Amino acid sequence: MNLMLTSFFRSSTSRKNHHIFTDIQRISSTILNTDNQVSYTECSLNLKGEGIMFSSNDTPAEEFVKAKELGAIINLDDISHIEFLEKEAGLPELVCFRFNPGPLKGGNAFIGNPEEAKYGFTKEQLFEGYRILKEKGVKRFGLHTMVASNELEPSYFVETAKLLFEVIVEISKELDIRFDFVNLGGGIGIPYRPDQKAVPYDVIAKGVRDEYEKSIKANGLDPLKIYLECGRTITGPYGYLVTEVRHLKHIYKDYVGTDACMANLMRPGLYGSYHHITVLGKENEPEDHLYDVTGSLCENNDKFAIDRMLPEIERGDLLVIHDSGAHGHAMGFNYNGKLRSAELMLREDKSVVLIRRAETIEDHFATLDLEGLEDFS
Amino acid sequence: MNLMLTSFFRSSTSRKNHHIFTDIQRISSTILNTDNQVSYTECSLNLKGEGIMFSSNDTPAEEFVKAKELGAIINLDDISHIEFLEKEAGLPELVCFRFNPGPLKGGNAFIGNPEEAKYGFTKEQLFEGYRILKEKGVKRFGLHTMVASNELEPSYFVETAKLLFEVIVEISKELDIRFDFVNLGGGIGIPYRPDQKAVPYDVIAKGVRDEYEKSIKANGLDPLKIYLECGRTITGPYGYLVTEVRHLKHIYKDYVGTDACMANLMRPGLYGSYHHITVLGKENEPEDHLYDVTGSLCENNDKFAIDRMLPEIERGDLLVIHDSGAHGHAMGFNYNGKLRSAELMLREDKSVVLIRRAETIEDHFATLDLEGLEDFS
Repeated sequence: MNLMLTSFFRSSTSRKNHHIFTDIQRISSTILNTDNQVSYTECSLNLKGEGIMFSSNDTPAEEFVKAKELGAIINLDDISHIEFLEKEAGLPELVCFRFNPGPLKGGNAFIGNPEEAKYGFTKEQLFEGYRILKEKGVKRFGLHTMVASNELEPSYFVETAKLLFEVIVEISKELDIRFDFVNLGGGIGIPYRPDQKAVPYDVIAKGVRDEYEKSIKANGLDPLKIYLECGRTITGPYGYLVTEVRHLKHIYKDYVGTDACMANLMRPGLYGSYHHITVLGKENEPEDHLYDVTGSLCENNDKFAIDRMLPEIERGDLLVIHDSGAHGHAMGFNYNGKLRSAELMLREDKSVVLIRRAETIEDHFATLDLEGLEDFS
Repeated sequence: MNLMLTSFFRSSTSRKNHHIFTDIQRISSTILNTDNQVSYTECSLNLKGEGIMFSSNDTPAEEFVKAKELGAIINLDDISHIEFLEKEAGLPELVCFRFNPGPLKGGNAFIGNPEEAKYGFTKEQLFEGYRILKEKGVKRFGLHTMVASNELEPSYFVETAKLLFEVIVEISKELDIRFDFVNLGGGIGIPYRPDQKAVPYDVIAKGVRDEYEKSIKANGLDPLKIYLECGRTITGPYGYLVTEVRHLKHIYKDYVGTDACMANLMRPGLYGSYHHITVLGKENEPEDHLYDVTGSLCENNDKFAIDRMLPEIERGDLLVIHDSGAHGHAMGFNYNGKLRSAELMLREDKSVVLIRRAETIEDHFATLDLEGLEDFS
């Protein structure tokens, strides 16, 4: 069962930089979950075959064609996609469905109620869908779900595993099919706040093993591969946004103005998320000043922290915004023409490598046909 | 007072496409409010001098230097920026301050409480700031505020004008200085919902004129130029996001899956904003089906409408998402590698011009140093 820790699906939602994938591939047997855009996989990573899990929703035909061509595991989001995939690309030997348990499972605060989520099959549709696949000659089957985001409570994942194992037992019996794998999805959180604890993987592993014995093994459905999608846990804690203090401002509140903004990290502005902040060289000073830490975007949500106690800050101080390795640069926008920064990687041998250059004005205006402008009056 | 309608500041927050500015310049005496990135103005529009109003916050030195060089109106966001501007670029002849009225003015629901906003000077700081400017030899003065966003109630703008006129009278008397202009800021809303009415400009004009007579004129401070920032009203209603229906999905709710996503229009996902949707060719059919209209992003907020009554929709239908001319493409992100679409302009002579090409995978990966990747092991 320790597959969970050494072999994982890595959701590309949170991070899209080849160099980081390259380093992850070097140290583990990564399988990439491509979330919608399987065509990128080939152009950037040279991954092929079942090392790619193609999860998507509202999928265009060309992405299914590309996924089929690459031999990826195709994870269908909706029962209507069976016919669509067959027509556009032909059905592969192995097909996976994404399950939306709806009322059978509570979501968590971050991802909301599964019944309100646009993703996946209902339980009834799973039975119908696998029946159709079997009739059409599909030989191998997978089941996937994704019901939580950034969850720290290990029992949540054990419950998800239990639910999926039970569904697999039911479907396997009723339709007389064998499942190759179950993908328990992502959602394992990281301790963004200093008083939070990392998820104890051993507790999840033991809980999942117990449920596995009780349902999968007891029903003779062993072996069943188990996958997890661990993008946030792998990348989140190991990325830092480093930003210099440009200005201090004292009006109705005290503001620390930095040279970063939502272009670099949108989670606080978009979700109100907490990211821990330390001031380089002031780690041991008392946190006795109350600040809002802001960016320079003309958007009042552009704040990295609101009412945060920090050491006294001066212009030129370097702030380190922690846990920015997931959903940072990849999620940043260019609103108001803000450009995104370079990315550096600190490697095990202490060398620092530029893995992405900073954006330029030329990048920002690349899609404007300036030659045409001259004739435009 | 009809300056308000024929001469305006146009906030570039909501739109950044030269071609649109070119067309606007052709039909009016536009003044551009550059919101932070004055350096773009030169490279893209060849605007110079006081046709540019440089409003910014948390401003880097190089942007002040560029604004000074262009002869732009410099609008300072904080009292500490006087010294910073003087040191980095020298003080120009004309300086404007952004006022944050704090408890003196209620914000609206869209922009929140001014006391929580990171922008501007307190009233006390205005007195102190203009006193410093006068001592340092600055000759001409402006006052700016921005306290609302997307407001439809005309009296709100009249109250803002009254507040600013009164502050100008107070400061002019106490410091014996003369104001060149007041910029009442933006915030004029547009009727996103079909049951809403456009802001009656004549009501604002009459109300502002009355207040002007009572304070500015009565105190001998006439003439005072009045500016408004009307980006949303000029561009918002005249932009449409047209998207094709890829899939219909029926689980716990009924979903219409489109080929657009938050990359093209983020307001519904980010703010829960309403955008009206019509189905081409079905304008007269009964709206008797309840749908969530979604994009294909792996982000459950990626919905253009939730629980919306629409005519029955089929795959291939074209949906028109209205009022997407402001805060659409310019605010879109590339999260999950989603690419933004082309932009077309319909001109008065009915011709259609491509004013921005669609993004490509090459654009998306432009900042990755792929040559370096080969040596990266």
